Amino acid sequence: MIFTEKANAIVGQSGGPTAAINATLAGVISAAISSDKIDTLYGARNGVEGMLREDIIDLGSFFNENTDEKLRRLSATPAAALGSCRLKLPATDGAENNEKYVKLFSFFKKNNIRYFFYIGGNDSMDTVSKLSAVSGNFDWEMNFIGVPKTIDNDLDVTDHTPGYGSCAKYIATVMSEMLCDTAVYTVKAVTIVEIMGRDTGWLTASAALAGINTGAFPDYIYLPERDFEYDAFFADIEEAFKKHPNVVIAVSEGLHFADGRLVGEDTQSGAVDVFGHKYLDGTGKALELAVKEKFGCKVRSVVLNLPQRCASHIASATDISESFGVGGAAVGAALDGKSKCMMCINRNDGEEYSVSFSPAPVENVANRIKYVPADFINEKGNGVTEKCIEYMLPLVRGEAEYFTRNGLPEFITLSL
Amino acid sequence: MIFTEKANAIVGQSGGPTAAINATLAGVISAAISSDKIDTLYGARNGVEGMLREDIIDLGSFFNENTDEKLRRLSATPAAALGSCRLKLPATDGAENNEKYVKLFSFFKKNNIRYFFYIGGNDSMDTVSKLSAVSGNFDWEMNFIGVPKTIDNDLDVTDHTPGYGSCAKYIATVMSEMLCDTAVYTVKAVTIVEIMGRDTGWLTASAALAGINTGAFPDYIYLPERDFEYDAFFADIEEAFKKHPNVVIAVSEGLHFADGRLVGEDTQSGAVDVFGHKYLDGTGKALELAVKEKFGCKVRSVVLNLPQRCASHIASATDISESFGVGGAAVGAALDGKSKCMMCINRNDGEEYSVSFSPAPVENVANRIKYVPADFINEKGNGVTEKCIEYMLPLVRGEAEYFTRNGLPEFITLSL
Repeated sequence: MIFTEKANAIVGQSGGPTAAINATLAGVISAAISSDKIDTLYGARNGVEGMLREDIIDLGSFFNENTDEKLRRLSATPAAALGSCRLKLPATDGAENNEKYVKLFSFFKKNNIRYFFYIGGNDSMDTVSKLSAVSGNFDWEMNFIGVPKTIDNDLDVTDHTPGYGSCAKYIATVMSEMLCDTAVYTVKAVTIVEIMGRDTGWLTASAALAGINTGAFPDYIYLPERDFEYDAFFADIEEAFKKHPNVVIAVSEGLHFADGRLVGEDTQSGAVDVFGHKYLDGTGKALELAVKEKFGCKVRSVVLNLPQRCASHIASATDISESFGVGGAAVGAALDGKSKCMMCINRNDGEEYSVSFSPAPVENVANRIKYVPADFINEKGNGVTEKCIEYMLPLVRGEAEYFTRNGLPEFITLSL
Repeated sequence: MIFTEKANAIVGQSGGPTAAINATLAGVISAAISSDKIDTLYGARNGVEGMLREDIIDLGSFFNENTDEKLRRLSATPAAALGSCRLKLPATDGAENNEKYVKLFSFFKKNNIRYFFYIGGNDSMDTVSKLSAVSGNFDWEMNFIGVPKTIDNDLDVTDHTPGYGSCAKYIATVMSEMLCDTAVYTVKAVTIVEIMGRDTGWLTASAALAGINTGAFPDYIYLPERDFEYDAFFADIEEAFKKHPNVVIAVSEGLHFADGRLVGEDTQSGAVDVFGHKYLDGTGKALELAVKEKFGCKVRSVVLNLPQRCASHIASATDISESFGVGGAAVGAALDGKSKCMMCINRNDGEEYSVSFSPAPVENVANRIKYVPADFINEKGNGVTEKCIEYMLPLVRGEAEYFTRNGLPEFITLSL
């Protein structure tokens, strides 16, 4: 609903860190502190966890001076400056007697909070959905808006998610560099690069961007959208060896067989260490062992791991700017009376890439997964199509601002 | 010796790739093509391997047009643009009858090559040393100059090695980012970051630079210069948990116990996969399992792997400029009649950091290892000293030039 009286707002961050989640926070802050309908903008430490323990900071005060400089620095700081959480709220039946919901709404009332912004992925949209559903039970009207954030790009309705472009840019960049690195020797070798993405292959697909300027692409890209088969995989490698001695392969961590078993389970289930513990190694290691067994050549697996999701030093300017924009648009939507929504990024029609932002019902997003579409993957299931590249390419464009001193990064800390 | 007549030169790259080895190649090319004493500068594909199979290219022709632009782009391209090798030349006794030496010197003579530049690490200096030693046997005078290159920074005599600063800058940068990333949750977790360096801890030490601007340092840094002990390691972690829930630790891949056994051997010797193969996991994984066993908390290991050694996108301007400079100085030394030398980077006295280049006898460098000195490591052996940071800090300074189009890297390829 539209609130005619001035009220307070709260913003939280939730789920896994990205290089862009703070840019969205900066967008929320920028719009909120310049609005005459919002009195105080609170930031909750560790998302809903911080609201439950009333651990909040007054973001308005913090950003009151040197606003632009601080917002730019916040946008260039990776991970979640307010801290994050993985708390999933309980089912909404009987919420009025549930300790968590009671605490949260008494906190909202006490602090006259009418606007709630939650920056996160799938689980965070579930939080927005649940809080919207029960607010009637507490006789406290509020507008709940989710703002997307996930490197995984697996949220429905939105064309893409803030954080994806920067992660894709890191992956494509280090993949280009590794393609140079692995090409220097003349001996047969296979390099397997394991990329994040348990359910979807959006990030792994971005490895295809490595060759856009250099002409050197990874030989194969395998996504979890297609069932994995060792026979086809080995045949692919044999084919690649006919062209050059150094084979480079990108794989999603979530690669699985037709029966649903994860490729990484091969090692996870079979191997035990000296203490008798099961090994919990991943897809890359399982494939490394299998290729070594089959070809007897040099094989190594490289797991891109944490650096891919927090690489602010090579963030995409497009991603950071859109992440900021969608945060601001969320504030606009809330002030306009929208609730129970997630802000989406829409790709506009036209030759030139451009986007607009609009709210979509959060139930269309929460607990759903957007997979890489069939026409983005080649027939053999070992690479991506031109259409996929056209989709990804604009998202990694431009060098985002990055602050250094003495050649090392400077980040902002939200401590008052 | 000083050659009065114009002659040809050859340059090769050898050993593991770095982000700076092509800058050194650019420095050699720049000096060689502007000298009136050098006729043709040849580049050997895959180092000595290419000389043996006479696979060479005329670098002078390639760089004849748009010289500056091409040299700048070469300097910004990671890995070895000429290709590399790991060939170790045979012992020098009876070299005049050894097929390899005979081939090489007949190749040098046939192409009137009087100047030999070899960019590489320890093993490459061994090549320079051996070729210098036997050139008398073939009645062919030549000047052999080694130009250092190794991310490991473990070469003697030189203050530091080209390639180290850029690798250290990548490590410090992603470590800063990971320190932001790991700090977002409130649950106890240990993150172990495995960094390259089998014998020495120079690269792992650079993790300490992460906190220079941000104030967030890794909790502990363990180098192979000190024997590793699980009891002290566990006690350190307990101590860190008193301060914060997220503990971040940097370790060298070459960490070992007092009896010389590698820490990673614990997993390597004990575990077998479903095929009955031994696991060949590393130090990070061994420590991850041990910490999980001891503390029962969330633990993960991150292996920085290939991206650390070829990260041109975040190369150190200081490193790239010195790498170029030392390549040019090598040509100057060869023309001055120096041979059997490696070019060194000397740190000048004075408040402001500056360097000069000078040749040192290659036998003082080849097959030796420079360890991190005792006064660079703290008493407990779990961190580095202020003196170590003062040594490293100037080496990562400045953002090296980096070419992009559409947000993705552009590299040069030496194909004629």
